Amino acid sequence: MDKCDIKTLFKPNSIAIIGASEKPGKIGYSIVDNIVSGGYKGKIYPVNPKGGSVLGCKIYKNIAEIPDNEIDIVCISIPASAVYDCVKECSVKKVKFLVIITSGFSEIGNTEEEKRILDLARSYNMRILGPNMFGIYTKAVSLNATFGPKNIKPGHVAILTQSGALGIGMIGKTAAMGLGLSTIVSMGNKVDIDETDLLDYLADDDDTKVIIMYMEGVKNGSKLIKVLKRVTKRKSVIAIKSGRSSRGAIATASHTGSLAGEDNIFDAVMKQCGVIRCETIKEALEWGLWSQFLLDIPLPQGENSIIITNGGGLGVLATDACEKYNINLYDNQKKMAEIFQGAVSSFGSTKNPIDLTGQASAEDYRKCLDVAIKDPEIHAIVALYCETAVFDQEALVEVIEEKFKDAQAHNKPLVFSLFGGTKLEEIITNLTSKGIPVFGDVYDAIYGLSALYNLEHNILKDIEKIVPIPMDFAAINTIIENARKQDRYFLLADEAQEVLKIAGIPIPASEIAATREQATELANKIGFPLVMKIVSKDIIHKSEAGGVKVNLQTVEQVTKAFDDIIASCKKYDHKAEITGIEVTKMADPGLQVIIGAKKDASFESVIMFGLGGIFVEVFKDVVFKALPISKNEANQMLMSIKANAILKGVRGEKHKDTDVIAEIILKVGELLTKCNHISDIEINPLFVYEKGKGATAVHIRILLEK
Amino acid sequence: MDKCDIKTLFKPNSIAIIGASEKPGKIGYSIVDNIVSGGYKGKIYPVNPKGGSVLGCKIYKNIAEIPDNEIDIVCISIPASAVYDCVKECSVKKVKFLVIITSGFSEIGNTEEEKRILDLARSYNMRILGPNMFGIYTKAVSLNATFGPKNIKPGHVAILTQSGALGIGMIGKTAAMGLGLSTIVSMGNKVDIDETDLLDYLADDDDTKVIIMYMEGVKNGSKLIKVLKRVTKRKSVIAIKSGRSSRGAIATASHTGSLAGEDNIFDAVMKQCGVIRCETIKEALEWGLWSQFLLDIPLPQGENSIIITNGGGLGVLATDACEKYNINLYDNQKKMAEIFQGAVSSFGSTKNPIDLTGQASAEDYRKCLDVAIKDPEIHAIVALYCETAVFDQEALVEVIEEKFKDAQAHNKPLVFSLFGGTKLEEIITNLTSKGIPVFGDVYDAIYGLSALYNLEHNILKDIEKIVPIPMDFAAINTIIENARKQDRYFLLADEAQEVLKIAGIPIPASEIAATREQATELANKIGFPLVMKIVSKDIIHKSEAGGVKVNLQTVEQVTKAFDDIIASCKKYDHKAEITGIEVTKMADPGLQVIIGAKKDASFESVIMFGLGGIFVEVFKDVVFKALPISKNEANQMLMSIKANAILKGVRGEKHKDTDVIAEIILKVGELLTKCNHISDIEINPLFVYEKGKGATAVHIRILLEK
Repeated sequence: MDKCDIKTLFKPNSIAIIGASEKPGKIGYSIVDNIVSGGYKGKIYPVNPKGGSVLGCKIYKNIAEIPDNEIDIVCISIPASAVYDCVKECSVKKVKFLVIITSGFSEIGNTEEEKRILDLARSYNMRILGPNMFGIYTKAVSLNATFGPKNIKPGHVAILTQSGALGIGMIGKTAAMGLGLSTIVSMGNKVDIDETDLLDYLADDDDTKVIIMYMEGVKNGSKLIKVLKRVTKRKSVIAIKSGRSSRGAIATASHTGSLAGEDNIFDAVMKQCGVIRCETIKEALEWGLWSQFLLDIPLPQGENSIIITNGGGLGVLATDACEKYNINLYDNQKKMAEIFQGAVSSFGSTKNPIDLTGQASAEDYRKCLDVAIKDPEIHAIVALYCETAVFDQEALVEVIEEKFKDAQAHNKPLVFSLFGGTKLEEIITNLTSKGIPVFGDVYDAIYGLSALYNLEHNILKDIEKIVPIPMDFAAINTIIENARKQDRYFLLADEAQEVLKIAGIPIPASEIAATREQATELANKIGFPLVMKIVSKDIIHKSEAGGVKVNLQTVEQVTKAFDDIIASCKKYDHKAEITGIEVTKMADPGLQVIIGAKKDASFESVIMFGLGGIFVEVFKDVVFKALPISKNEANQMLMSIKANAILKGVRGEKHKDTDVIAEIILKVGELLTKCNHISDIEINPLFVYEKGKGATAVHIRILLEK
Repeated sequence: MDKCDIKTLFKPNSIAIIGASEKPGKIGYSIVDNIVSGGYKGKIYPVNPKGGSVLGCKIYKNIAEIPDNEIDIVCISIPASAVYDCVKECSVKKVKFLVIITSGFSEIGNTEEEKRILDLARSYNMRILGPNMFGIYTKAVSLNATFGPKNIKPGHVAILTQSGALGIGMIGKTAAMGLGLSTIVSMGNKVDIDETDLLDYLADDDDTKVIIMYMEGVKNGSKLIKVLKRVTKRKSVIAIKSGRSSRGAIATASHTGSLAGEDNIFDAVMKQCGVIRCETIKEALEWGLWSQFLLDIPLPQGENSIIITNGGGLGVLATDACEKYNINLYDNQKKMAEIFQGAVSSFGSTKNPIDLTGQASAEDYRKCLDVAIKDPEIHAIVALYCETAVFDQEALVEVIEEKFKDAQAHNKPLVFSLFGGTKLEEIITNLTSKGIPVFGDVYDAIYGLSALYNLEHNILKDIEKIVPIPMDFAAINTIIENARKQDRYFLLADEAQEVLKIAGIPIPASEIAATREQATELANKIGFPLVMKIVSKDIIHKSEAGGVKVNLQTVEQVTKAFDDIIASCKKYDHKAEITGIEVTKMADPGLQVIIGAKKDASFESVIMFGLGGIFVEVFKDVVFKALPISKNEANQMLMSIKANAILKGVRGEKHKDTDVIAEIILKVGELLTKCNHISDIEINPLFVYEKGKGATAVHIRILLEK
């Protein structure tokens, strides 16, 4: 079903309410009441077998009775057991959307009935919102089809919520905060319509400037990623996801697995998509409140920001905030002095933050802002005002309104922070209602500006090309199939090495010798030092069997090792079928890094990069991204670990071969996503050498899906 | 001057205002206006050479004319140049406090005049608040001796501010927030009275429950630490310090120095003292708002916390918040089921969080809270309510009031969070005004509970004994004196080693050989492997001179090394005076840690601990504390680094000898604080071995004060 259809959910011409009630206090009454008193202009068809009327609307005894052959939305609030038949009835009319408020489905384990209803709806081309939700509000047609509060303030923020209870709370809270909504959708069990569908519509809905999502889990993660990347180029998307504390609960065999807690991955993916993740609802709604301005404020055309203040203290706090939020304070003092000479009194300072001092009048602000707005060297302005004993606040309001307009005309962002008492708070409320970004706290103002910079970066970022990497997938799949035929869910060392060879990931030279003589030959061919390991499908614990010899430096040592390994392994298991002995070049020690990729329940497949050894174990200094990723994103992963300085070389060491690491990250991602049945790949360690000298995958583990 | 005197600043019987004015709009008028309209009952003496009267008070022409021989406070608001003479005039009356509002002193470089005034005041036993400030408000006598806003709400929060502008803003803001103040003191340039004096008084002021400090810099850091440790056992102290971004600006020779940015140290010291550090003023005031309840709420008597909710979503958010703020959720499910059986409906869940479901009535909350309050297994309760479509909120208010009282009676903390619309916000305002801790956001409620736990931990923590460590300080001071006599501001390697030996910090065995034969003898005595190094005051760059040989394994190698070193060094500098060759045992490699201590501009002396090598360079994983520290605090340092797992042994390694590290930390602290003229000590690396096997200081650097 395409986008033009989802539009109908937000702009329906008609709505039927199954389970409508004449009795105040009942959910079936509340919904009709909210629809009627909300001012919906479309057709309203309450339905209840008892008939009668509610709030001036006739109650139809059943759906068939409705004198309309097309109904855009049918809102269902009847017992769970009756829903299936109701949906069946809907099929006789051209119903487009079923908004199923009724609970008692998959959330209590009744998954089968939910699926039966979905299948039925699909067969008639009807889409389902819910079940187990409180309804939908859509400003476009003034429709409040919920059983929540009446007083929804229309505005530009869309809320998508998986929790009905919190959704109802948020309706109340947003109204109390003066935060206007373009829509609020309760998604319930998301049996059909989910975030992805809704975001796809909202991306192009001009009335929606900000989207706040409350999520408890993710379905269709890879579709979600695609749509989020698209939406965040146009509007601000804020996600609250609860269930943080459940992370790390999984114990798995690989580092990648144990570090890939659900919440870590969610966090990484949101970052990857340009979504702002909030921890608390309060934070998200405050963000929402301010973000409304976003679409109307010009984005900064460069990195030179300035702060104008009337108090040193505020200025220092603002400077701290700029450091925290990565805002670049213009620091060409000579230029600043030139620009603001005449606009700042001799008591003040033209350094950044520009200090107009506690004596500053509204007129002083006007003069200074005027210069800042007009000067092309300056790209973004934050004006701070701290209540003083003697100051004409009304005059300041005038200046703010005037200069904000000027800044808009000059295509330059200008945000304000006013700090003080009740009077100032009223001023803030008044100015924000006019669309002017005025904050109470200086950190919020700077955070606000940083959001503009983020949005600018999101927009500037090209949709990055994801380039397929050619490799012989057929050959790899054959190796995998062979393992699966043997009921093995992992690849043997030599199989995994073969996969890497095919993928073009460098591994130490290695061959299998069947005889002592072959071993000597190989040793001379490969070069010293060497490692020798038994190859036998029957011997899993090679070291225990005496099947491993390391650091062999001479032909004599190799010959002796061959004999010792064979003898020891035969003694360990005289029935073991011995294929031969693997002769491997010992890799030159390099910087140890780890690259892992795995299938993910929410986002299909994810990739991880980090430094190996102690770094991954103690600091857990790794980064994740959802696959597929572009070359640019692979490089970003390298730079995102905390210890990225090590890659650039510390203590006089040379820059590491980061190009090769990025290339191997891409190849590991390609293997996981393009080959059949791979569930986990982990190279740990990958030895990395200095720039131009590449890397070697020393140990590799490939697990298969069961 | 002792405490009983500072009391007079907060409870004066009389106040004179020098520079009083008859003209509204003037600062000298505002102050008198605020004092009079604020309801101050003490004697008010406006002073101005012009005479006249203001707001019903006679204006005296000079101080001498005041018909009172003792004046508790003289508030001065006249030009800077006239202040000195004014102070002189004050000396004829028994003036106790000079509140100098006037600016134009050290803040603009006029330090001399400020000092002159201070000396004068001291000679007459008068104390100074300011200069360069906006005054003082003290609820105890309803005195608003400021030129800030009139409408100060009386309450239990004390604000000490170094920024006048932000202080005035905070008066406005707190009034708007409904946050009541016990006092607000503008400290200005802190020429005499500073945080320490004020905190010392406020610690015992029953009317002050919370103290918020805005600081830009610290004077008398070590006195401040002492008083903070005392205050935080009784009340909540919140510090906002701006100037974060200036950190790291200092480039120094040692790691300790380069990591000891002013802000890092401040942060560490506040933690050490149990102070809550806030980043923004908004955050601090919100904290203040809630912390008022602190003193009236019973502290938890154990770690078993429970959450009661009517919505799964809120419950999950609360669980996340508990993880974030280290609140232990009681998880004995069997016991929970027993306790709450009967108090939770069958739809709900007795697991933690206890879910009463969206159907829950006020009565359901009552029943469940009742059980929780009475059960001795449960030590703290957080009750969450999310607005639902059908619920009697008035009944809930009753339950909250009743159950809060019950909880108080049962000596058990109970906090609430209500999430929803305007009506609920009114309820929150109403309940909080009655002293019941009710929050809008669930994270705030959990944070609130965590503050109770913190306070409990602060109180339980004994005033830890700081035990002096006996060592021969005289001998060490002789070494230092000797270096200073040679105009050296660092100790030579052998001197530093000698200091460590005296302090009882293990260093590798080492002696100086004058001849080849002595070297052989020493080698046999010390044992192999060895390092040999030239000892010459003229050769600084030993390696460059060929003066170092490492990893010597045999007597033959030692003999040869001796000859080679002498030959090479003579060639390098034929005039060099050679004392001999140091023969040192090579330390067994162990875990590398760094211990550093240095003099600090704010807090006298600080100590640092971290892992060495890459950890300190890349991760900056170090912790600081202000000296002196107790043994317990030394141990805390070990456990506070991020990589503390390494000390406990990872990857099958054994637990490291943390007792010995702690002991060395204490000894390094002792050296810095007790010996003369040491400015920096750094042991880097200290090799640490497994438990029971000690540690060895491999490299040591001691710098002296210039």
